[in-house]
Amino acid sequence: MLAMAALLPACAAAQAPAPAPAPAAPRVPSGMQWLYGSGEGGASSLQAYAAFSAYVIGRAQARPEESVVLAADATLDNPRMLPCGERPLAVVLDVDETAIQNLGYEYDEAVRGLSYDQERWNRWERTGADAVLAMPGAAQALRTIRNHGVAVLFNSNRMAAHADQTEAAIDGAGLGPAVHGETLFLQGDHGTGSAKDPRRAAISARYCVIAMAGDQLGDFSDLFNARTLSVPDRRRHATTPPFSALWGQGWFMLSNPVYGPGLRGTFDEVFPADRRWSDPHGGNR
Amino acid sequence: MLAMAALLPACAAAQAPAPAPAPAAPRVPSGMQWLYGSGEGGASSLQAYAAFSAYVIGRAQARPEESVVLAADATLDNPRMLPCGERPLAVVLDVDETAIQNLGYEYDEAVRGLSYDQERWNRWERTGADAVLAMPGAAQALRTIRNHGVAVLFNSNRMAAHADQTEAAIDGAGLGPAVHGETLFLQGDHGTGSAKDPRRAAISARYCVIAMAGDQLGDFSDLFNARTLSVPDRRRHATTPPFSALWGQGWFMLSNPVYGPGLRGTFDEVFPADRRWSDPHGGNR
Repeated sequence: MLAMAALLPACAAAQAPAPAPAPAAPRVPSGMQWLYGSGEGGASSLQAYAAFSAYVIGRAQARPEESVVLAADATLDNPRMLPCGERPLAVVLDVDETAIQNLGYEYDEAVRGLSYDQERWNRWERTGADAVLAMPGAAQALRTIRNHGVAVLFNSNRMAAHADQTEAAIDGAGLGPAVHGETLFLQGDHGTGSAKDPRRAAISARYCVIAMAGDQLGDFSDLFNARTLSVPDRRRHATTPPFSALWGQGWFMLSNPVYGPGLRGTFDEVFPADRRWSDPHGGNR
Repeated sequence: MLAMAALLPACAAAQAPAPAPAPAAPRVPSGMQWLYGSGEGGASSLQAYAAFSAYVIGRAQARPEESVVLAADATLDNPRMLPCGERPLAVVLDVDETAIQNLGYEYDEAVRGLSYDQERWNRWERTGADAVLAMPGAAQALRTIRNHGVAVLFNSNRMAAHADQTEAAIDGAGLGPAVHGETLFLQGDHGTGSAKDPRRAAISARYCVIAMAGDQLGDFSDLFNARTLSVPDRRRHATTPPFSALWGQGWFMLSNPVYGPGLRGTFDEVFPADRRWSDPHGGNR
């Protein structure tokens, strides 16, 4: 009985649940620090918009025969651009993290330690119009482009059902006017789902698109979003001829390390097998 | 006794230590996925180098009176550029994540779940010369710039003691020649520590610097590295006049969300207080 009794306290202690550790206070993800908080990220956006604006002004003077929108029969190995005809000149921009910084949404998601949620994003589209800012350089560039007689159009995967609020977000950031169906094209307007090519086709029926800006390859062509395309093949297509010549020359990339299809890949997909190094000093994790 | 005996198995089970969870396999950090693995990151680099090359060719034809290197008495509020005199034209580039991708080092660090270590980086400088690649667009841009009679100089915080290996890394990536003391300036050459202004001053005594490229604000002026400069003030100075006009017009930023002083800041430093949003649906972490 003594031995038995002696067991009881230890036993009870062992059975008592350990106190749950306090959750670590969330820190700002490094991609957000760079994109929204750093001079480097701001400079990168200013540089992209300076190049975009200068390019558009130059092209508007020498009226181009070719659009920078790929034809319907184009492939990654055999691209072809649409002809312009006599249609009026336009530029096409993505909205989120291309034209505007979604500061309110990203703050809420990060400070609460959450990951992306489509329903929360939908609520953001409906209620967050006043918690954004223009990307650095965007407002001045779009003003200059409009002053040169070139139409500014937006092609976004925000929902057509929230068009009023997205118009308000763009206008409030100083980038408007954005008018749904005229200068703002949204998910649900043409074709289905997040494909942007059907909207680019609809825009191209009315305009000669001389430049496009985005933060994802899908802002330029849905061909880059093919599920069969591996991470290294996707990078190879974007960075070798013919597409390599378009960056800064019709297609303009805004750097977004916070979200999107650019944030994918295993070690073997991201790091070339012939560029590995092992610390000669060794060491463990 | 029966009750006591019945307690024992449960008690013994409770006392058995839980098996230690297997360490989670490290995943590629999202910044590395974007910079080294994505078409978006590659496009961003191609775009920056296309703008760099075009700008340098234009400036080399209309010989500038002013350098893009700040004078010794410049401040962030009152900057002044050095005069060029009749000195030969040059461009100045940072090396790491500006001219070359340090794939071997970043792979080793990430796959072993480690964070930055100065001693490991020193071993990388000494032994990793063949595990790098040029940043997309860098090789063609530097070739074009040299063909236009403009000298290509490198200003890096790699150690002068490892000059041979850094020359080999740059040459091996197809970006050379880099010759220590002539076209390659390293930590220890002029001044002390990681300050790059003394090296920019030494370069400016021999050259008219018409463009600079880097992935950190310190690649353009040490003024941005003042410890007294808050994260928001640093971004404000980089993105408002007079410095805002330099991006893509003499100063060229390569996007690096993997490391560096751009990856800093608390929620209050990164997100403006007047651009907050709380999900109306609420929800907890």
